[in-house]
Amino acid sequence: MGQRRTQLPDSRTTPRFAGLVTFGRYPRLADVAPACAPVDWAVYGVPYDSGVTYRPGARFGPRAVREASQYLKAYSIEHDVDVLEVLSLADAGDAPVSPYHPKQTLDGVADFACEIGDPTHTKLLALGGDHSIAYANLRATHARHGGGSPLALLHFDSHLDTVDAVWGERYGHASPFIRAVEEGVVDPKRMLSIGIKGPLNTKRDLDYARDHGVTIVTAEQWRAGGASILDEFKARVGDAPTYLTIDIDVADPAYAPGTGTPSVGGFTSAELLGAIRLARGLNLVGADVVEVLPAMDVAEITALLAAHAAFEVLALDAVRRSTQH
Amino acid sequence: MGQRRTQLPDSRTTPRFAGLVTFGRYPRLADVAPACAPVDWAVYGVPYDSGVTYRPGARFGPRAVREASQYLKAYSIEHDVDVLEVLSLADAGDAPVSPYHPKQTLDGVADFACEIGDPTHTKLLALGGDHSIAYANLRATHARHGGGSPLALLHFDSHLDTVDAVWGERYGHASPFIRAVEEGVVDPKRMLSIGIKGPLNTKRDLDYARDHGVTIVTAEQWRAGGASILDEFKARVGDAPTYLTIDIDVADPAYAPGTGTPSVGGFTSAELLGAIRLARGLNLVGADVVEVLPAMDVAEITALLAAHAAFEVLALDAVRRSTQH
Amino acid sequence: MGQRRTQLPDSRTTPRFAGLVTFGRYPRLADVAPACAPVDWAVYGVPYDSGVTYRPGARFGPRAVREASQYLKAYSIEHDVDVLEVLSLADAGDAPVSPYHPKQTLDGVADFACEIGDPTHTKLLALGGDHSIAYANLRATHARHGGGSPLALLHFDSHLDTVDAVWGERYGHASPFIRAVEEGVVDPKRMLSIGIKGPLNTKRDLDYARDHGVTIVTAEQWRAGGASILDEFKARVGDAPTYLTIDIDVADPAYAPGTGTPSVGGFTSAELLGAIRLARGLNLVGADVVEVLPAMDVAEITALLAAHAAFEVLALDAVRRSTQH
Amino acid sequence: MGQRRTQLPDSRTTPRFAGLVTFGRYPRLADVAPACAPVDWAVYGVPYDSGVTYRPGARFGPRAVREASQYLKAYSIEHDVDVLEVLSLADAGDAPVSPYHPKQTLDGVADFACEIGDPTHTKLLALGGDHSIAYANLRATHARHGGGSPLALLHFDSHLDTVDAVWGERYGHASPFIRAVEEGVVDPKRMLSIGIKGPLNTKRDLDYARDHGVTIVTAEQWRAGGASILDEFKARVGDAPTYLTIDIDVADPAYAPGTGTPSVGGFTSAELLGAIRLARGLNLVGADVVEVLPAMDVAEITALLAAHAAFEVLALDAVRRSTQH
Amino acid sequence: MGQRRTQLPDSRTTPRFAGLVTFGRYPRLADVAPACAPVDWAVYGVPYDSGVTYRPGARFGPRAVREASQYLKAYSIEHDVDVLEVLSLADAGDAPVSPYHPKQTLDGVADFACEIGDPTHTKLLALGGDHSIAYANLRATHARHGGGSPLALLHFDSHLDTVDAVWGERYGHASPFIRAVEEGVVDPKRMLSIGIKGPLNTKRDLDYARDHGVTIVTAEQWRAGGASILDEFKARVGDAPTYLTIDIDVADPAYAPGTGTPSVGGFTSAELLGAIRLARGLNLVGADVVEVLPAMDVAEITALLAAHAAFEVLALDAVRRSTQH
Amino acid sequence: MGQRRTQLPDSRTTPRFAGLVTFGRYPRLADVAPACAPVDWAVYGVPYDSGVTYRPGARFGPRAVREASQYLKAYSIEHDVDVLEVLSLADAGDAPVSPYHPKQTLDGVADFACEIGDPTHTKLLALGGDHSIAYANLRATHARHGGGSPLALLHFDSHLDTVDAVWGERYGHASPFIRAVEEGVVDPKRMLSIGIKGPLNTKRDLDYARDHGVTIVTAEQWRAGGASILDEFKARVGDAPTYLTIDIDVADPAYAPGTGTPSVGGFTSAELLGAIRLARGLNLVGADVVEVLPAMDVAEITALLAAHAAFEVLALDAVRRSTQH
Repeated sequence: MGQRRTQLPDSRTTPRFAGLVTFGRYPRLADVAPACAPVDWAVYGVPYDSGVTYRPGARFGPRAVREASQYLKAYSIEHDVDVLEVLSLADAGDAPVSPYHPKQTLDGVADFACEIGDPTHTKLLALGGDHSIAYANLRATHARHGGGSPLALLHFDSHLDTVDAVWGERYGHASPFIRAVEEGVVDPKRMLSIGIKGPLNTKRDLDYARDHGVTIVTAEQWRAGGASILDEFKARVGDAPTYLTIDIDVADPAYAPGTGTPSVGGFTSAELLGAIRLARGLNLVGADVVEVLPAMDVAEITALLAAHAAFEVLALDAVRRSTQH
Repeated sequence: MGQRRTQLPDSRTTPRFAGLVTFGRYPRLADVAPACAPVDWAVYGVPYDSGVTYRPGARFGPRAVREASQYLKAYSIEHDVDVLEVLSLADAGDAPVSPYHPKQTLDGVADFACEIGDPTHTKLLALGGDHSIAYANLRATHARHGGGSPLALLHFDSHLDTVDAVWGERYGHASPFIRAVEEGVVDPKRMLSIGIKGPLNTKRDLDYARDHGVTIVTAEQWRAGGASILDEFKARVGDAPTYLTIDIDVADPAYAPGTGTPSVGGFTSAELLGAIRLARGLNLVGADVVEVLPAMDVAEITALLAAHAAFEVLALDAVRRSTQH
Repeated sequence: MGQRRTQLPDSRTTPRFAGLVTFGRYPRLADVAPACAPVDWAVYGVPYDSGVTYRPGARFGPRAVREASQYLKAYSIEHDVDVLEVLSLADAGDAPVSPYHPKQTLDGVADFACEIGDPTHTKLLALGGDHSIAYANLRATHARHGGGSPLALLHFDSHLDTVDAVWGERYGHASPFIRAVEEGVVDPKRMLSIGIKGPLNTKRDLDYARDHGVTIVTAEQWRAGGASILDEFKARVGDAPTYLTIDIDVADPAYAPGTGTPSVGGFTSAELLGAIRLARGLNLVGADVVEVLPAMDVAEITALLAAHAAFEVLALDAVRRSTQH
Repeated sequence: MGQRRTQLPDSRTTPRFAGLVTFGRYPRLADVAPACAPVDWAVYGVPYDSGVTYRPGARFGPRAVREASQYLKAYSIEHDVDVLEVLSLADAGDAPVSPYHPKQTLDGVADFACEIGDPTHTKLLALGGDHSIAYANLRATHARHGGGSPLALLHFDSHLDTVDAVWGERYGHASPFIRAVEEGVVDPKRMLSIGIKGPLNTKRDLDYARDHGVTIVTAEQWRAGGASILDEFKARVGDAPTYLTIDIDVADPAYAPGTGTPSVGGFTSAELLGAIRLARGLNLVGADVVEVLPAMDVAEITALLAAHAAFEVLALDAVRRSTQH
Repeated sequence: MGQRRTQLPDSRTTPRFAGLVTFGRYPRLADVAPACAPVDWAVYGVPYDSGVTYRPGARFGPRAVREASQYLKAYSIEHDVDVLEVLSLADAGDAPVSPYHPKQTLDGVADFACEIGDPTHTKLLALGGDHSIAYANLRATHARHGGGSPLALLHFDSHLDTVDAVWGERYGHASPFIRAVEEGVVDPKRMLSIGIKGPLNTKRDLDYARDHGVTIVTAEQWRAGGASILDEFKARVGDAPTYLTIDIDVADPAYAPGTGTPSVGGFTSAELLGAIRLARGLNLVGADVVEVLPAMDVAEITALLAAHAAFEVLALDAVRRSTQH
Repeated sequence: MGQRRTQLPDSRTTPRFAGLVTFGRYPRLADVAPACAPVDWAVYGVPYDSGVTYRPGARFGPRAVREASQYLKAYSIEHDVDVLEVLSLADAGDAPVSPYHPKQTLDGVADFACEIGDPTHTKLLALGGDHSIAYANLRATHARHGGGSPLALLHFDSHLDTVDAVWGERYGHASPFIRAVEEGVVDPKRMLSIGIKGPLNTKRDLDYARDHGVTIVTAEQWRAGGASILDEFKARVGDAPTYLTIDIDVADPAYAPGTGTPSVGGFTSAELLGAIRLARGLNLVGADVVEVLPAMDVAEITALLAAHAAFEVLALDAVRRSTQH
């Protein structure tokens, strides 16, 4: 068993309850010696929630997820891979934000994200914040991959997030994917939304997906055999660059009480983690985990779930790399 | 897509976090112009909990469920029906109550319920309060339908609620259905209790059901294929007037911590909502959702589940009407 | 003892835990017969929190304060006055809001407020929302009183709220009074801020008050005898129209955990209520109670304190009217 | 320093977080060898809350207070007395209760209480439960002292509790003292109510006290020098048998969030404990601490305060006995 | 239906919310008349948490589980057995503990446990406390059964608990089974660990099981059909003395937020209780339920689940005895 | 107004809710350019709680206090000093810890602390952890000042912390000062303990103070005029090196619910901060703030109070330096 590529604090003197907090106890990006090879993934936070339509507070999400991530371990028994052995990882801190001027703020987040680590090598895992920040991380990811063909998108969520505008604002948390499609960042025909559930505002909310070719799998459909649709998606997408976005409200309020627009009848944590694991094989080039709202969380369980969802993203990439070598 | 029959506040200026609270943001019954056709369903609260045997506090249930219901939307993706397009809905406020004299209080609730809206047209959805209030709403529903044959009863609960008396009180929350049967309001042979689970006080608790023909499906049996018993129930009941009663403690404490007699091993929210949806086709003439205890709730998840269970009741009626036309 | 001018629901059948929620169980303004004399005070909510600089969530404040206000009673033993006998009161619902475009939203709130009840008679008590909404209610109050001389301002707060702009936004919750002074709505020389405490961002935060003549009483100074400054203020202001603004964070986090920018070392609830009572005699023409953030509240104590602070405002007016007759 | 008269578990092997729970870790009354001298005080619970007018749940109060009392220590630094050295103490368990039939239940509580320990020697400290249980403990205390002259009553509370009836019920938690006076158990002219505060329902709530000679000290009056009224009361009562009743809602919601009818502007814990200590010298013959509602408590602070209030009662008796010897 | 062998307090006068607390309301072992036959099972607590590696606080676990157990009933509908009819049960209080010197403390616990009831008849059910206490109860159980062949072990947990030492301590909560195997108390080849899940610290954590023949079923494997492995285990173990250990963190944080090392993706309560029930037929000679951490619990749901898990252990033995007769 | 000596992140792009967390948003000590002058104060955490006698969990205290400290501002209005202008400050991270072997762990903490920054210049502010860590920080502080005469000690606490040993352990949280005195680190005759309150275990707990000359001011004495004793202490100590230790449980549970041994009747936050401010003028050479237990905290209020208590320590030194120049 090899040396780990990502070094953590020595747990004999710095237990998991000790030390300044970074995601997963990974080193700060600024502390990774520049002579080293660039890190494979940089985790960064976007403490921004001005895109919300109901409960605000996800601006405190990155802090809560980082704190819960102190208990993350490294070896995935399900994938038989040690994430820290395969990947070099770092925490890049938080993007610049202000609560006002959504478009400008998201542009600033995208600019920050474009410069993290080695743009040609380092992949980005963003911690929200509300779902509008996915638009910024998607843009940065797309740009860092040359800005060519739009990305495929695997989307776990209770909501479609393809509303054109709310209160006249086009960059809120109900709209990230409609914007990303408009800008050529995401290919709607290779977009798969898993976990959607009602009630919706109106039936018209489904029009965008139908008209643009987005595939929707409701939570009920997933349970009744939706995994085959994911397999079909994987076959169709193949090795194309794919982005993975996880809205924690895809989990039921019992598992994710700390979120802004909770949706009853959602996934158990086992269903969510299991579904992510099924994405094994995709060529993930970026990801986000969003909508953790600590003020409504209880006993940190939402943040803990989000931290583990983020871990599963890294594990997907680690197992893909392990398998390829 | 037609005009909605139930008008909500304009969400552009009155977002879901704004406005005086009514169930689902539906109009107050008193505000529905009398010249209009009578509303199809009236939701009303029964802030009463003197029937409890363990934790009190469900008197605050109607208030909590109404508040959680602000986030209810209208279109059921599972049934492909927009509840607000098909149904005219209103909130009739709370029934008169006092914590003393259970029988008299429940009589007063039934009297109040009898007079809501148009007795020959408007159906009643009661929000508890403890389960004893089902007795009152059942009586009112039966009376409004002419008081003839007893109603069929579909019952989601962890408990049987057919105990004769507790501490000498015959109208507590363990007894609503034994009373309803005695008074010819419910037909025990067309009563189906889903989600029952142990431990029970004694095996004798099962005698009433056995002796009177009530069908019991335990939570374990439901998971192992109980849906077929519901199908059989639907075939047997056909178009007969049926009442639906949902004790929120049928859901596991992880999903419904805010309840008075929590029962471990209960349904997930997906199991509960899915089971209600399977009742599609029944001729529902009244319903209740009971036993929400806000003081034990966390992050409003119990109230949110109860609000959505109530929505599913309305959706069942909406889809039946849609299908019939 | 006379008939009460404000009728509440009959508590024998509608106990305090029953009924649709309005502030203090007062009638909805729309339900007060138009033939009646106009109400003396209208309470309304402003569910808006886009002005915050730290924790958002006060958009849910009006709802929480109304719910806590169900336990308000009417007779002030300290002032020997029954508020419901002296005043006719109503709840005017919530102002229109959206989370974006602060200035436009506050303009909309002011427009709404200008039209409530009888503009020449009815006084306005606004429930926040964050403190930026005071700017809107101040403007409406000033306009309804003819728009002449600026109002005197009595201000309970841990913070000065005279910052010019934060993140470039000039209408946030740190700026309502600088804006109100600029627009001639408030007279800074007759503005008294009680309960200010450190640490402040920089000493420069005090410049505005020094340069414009605002009187500051820190929490420590208040305890050491600040009441005399309030007496001096009352003598100076005399019968001039005065507005009272109460930021609940003037109370210590032990009393008001549910607020956005908690300030340690604040008033006890007895100190706060006692200080408000000392304002007896002022000619109050409008008021607000702001910054209740329910997601951080515990056991409703912040909302309960805010509801009682609002009651004390009404009691001040009631006792002034009683004394004058 | 003498041997302690009350033996606790050995804290070297049974720390405060270990062992079956009794109040203060005192022995169960049934375990005190009958050959011993009778215990000086027996603590017992009354898990009953059907007397409440707002939030129920105080039936779980005795259990919570006992649990919080595990951290009670024995030596009062303020009185310089070790309670366990002076007094023999025991926990007598809970009185029989049912949630129905208030009068009969309270009669049953009184009957149970009459029989505890040695009726001619053992004093009773009851843990509520709602305040209606004071009526039962008062009756038992009066009877055990021969049933002659009515007792003097020292009363800490936010509320007067001299309402004749609520919802027609004459034995609720708003009425214990009116009943006790009617039955000759309490002498209203030697009844002192400390901590009363508004708002009250109506001014008429004060009539009973005025007409019957009850002395009222509001919370504001207490802070402004009410201790002198307590001194005067002590002088007037002298050595007459006196009962002490403590409604935990006399403390502010910041200190006692876990109570049924919280009253803003109440005592700090230091004010409450200090006030009880001032009662030193009175001839206490019985007491109660009531209205702890665990479901609304946070971090056990209400129960902890109640446990310490109960301790102060015992300390008053211990110091009186110590001083007399 | 026969007389119950275990007598509970009369619920007509001592409802479930009344009375001094023992597990399940069973009699204290000291109160069971010595002339009686020895009790079949004694429940005892081990309020000790110095073995933890992350969050401490399980020392308060026995108290919380006992309190939650007040709502336990007796008749298992799933097994059709009344536990109180078949078994005589008692609560033996808490073992002696101190937070220091883990090995000595656990030795003391084992010594205490060896002496409970009739060592040749009474079986022991220990309530933790952290998982290190299983080592003590295992040793006592083994000794009481003659100390011969090592016990078979059925183990529900998210973690393997076969780490040699943490911070140099060999008796912490990650090590109970490695110690028990070393001492000949447990046979690793007849040890089945169900519910294991990642991430683990390193792949090397699996070495012990592989090298010693422990069978591991991950949570994912269990859902995919692990019950057959349990059947195979039962066939292999036959009638041999078997110990059952349940770490509550095998349940997902949504069901067991109150635990020290929560593990995302765990069992639902229905999965956990169902899995325990499948152990029917094993010759259980001792058991424990551990790792309840009340300070992180919400609405008592973790404690409630633990109490019911303990009940299921008793039900397993009751149904085995019933079936044999 | 001068340039600040301690640079914080730019709040325009890194608001207080953004960025990796350090105490007060101060730079990490490792990031302060070595060419700079040494920092004046280094804050470090000691995530250790194996010294507790009741509730554990303070190991998570440093993390919680750092998070609450994000809202700290810089200008003390009470002292008229800007801490960041006068002092250069940094966060040195956490000391090495393990939960076992208290003495060795505390030795390791002291060793770590001895090496922080410039031992001849940088002062140490330790964040607990339980109070036993004061022993380690005291030793390091004493050593860094040459190890000569014992330090004077100003001590805010509800407890004396001069117990010789608990469960045989001499380095627990009840014993730091008895050890520090024994080792010549603290001079008991210049030790002042403020806020002590009962009940105590026994009167003998006072013997140590009496026999060694420690001055005790109870909470009651403080309120009745204890400030004069502090003045006398300051006069007596003069310019001698003085250490300040603050156990957050000196504040009442209403203000500090999140602590391990809460003590009823404690200081309000205003009393605590005011008392610290009165220490102005002392020559502080080190300090600690301890016993924050996040799992029992509500709405972060305990952590917020602790962060502000730490700020007041820095302000004391800043104002002393400002005054001297």
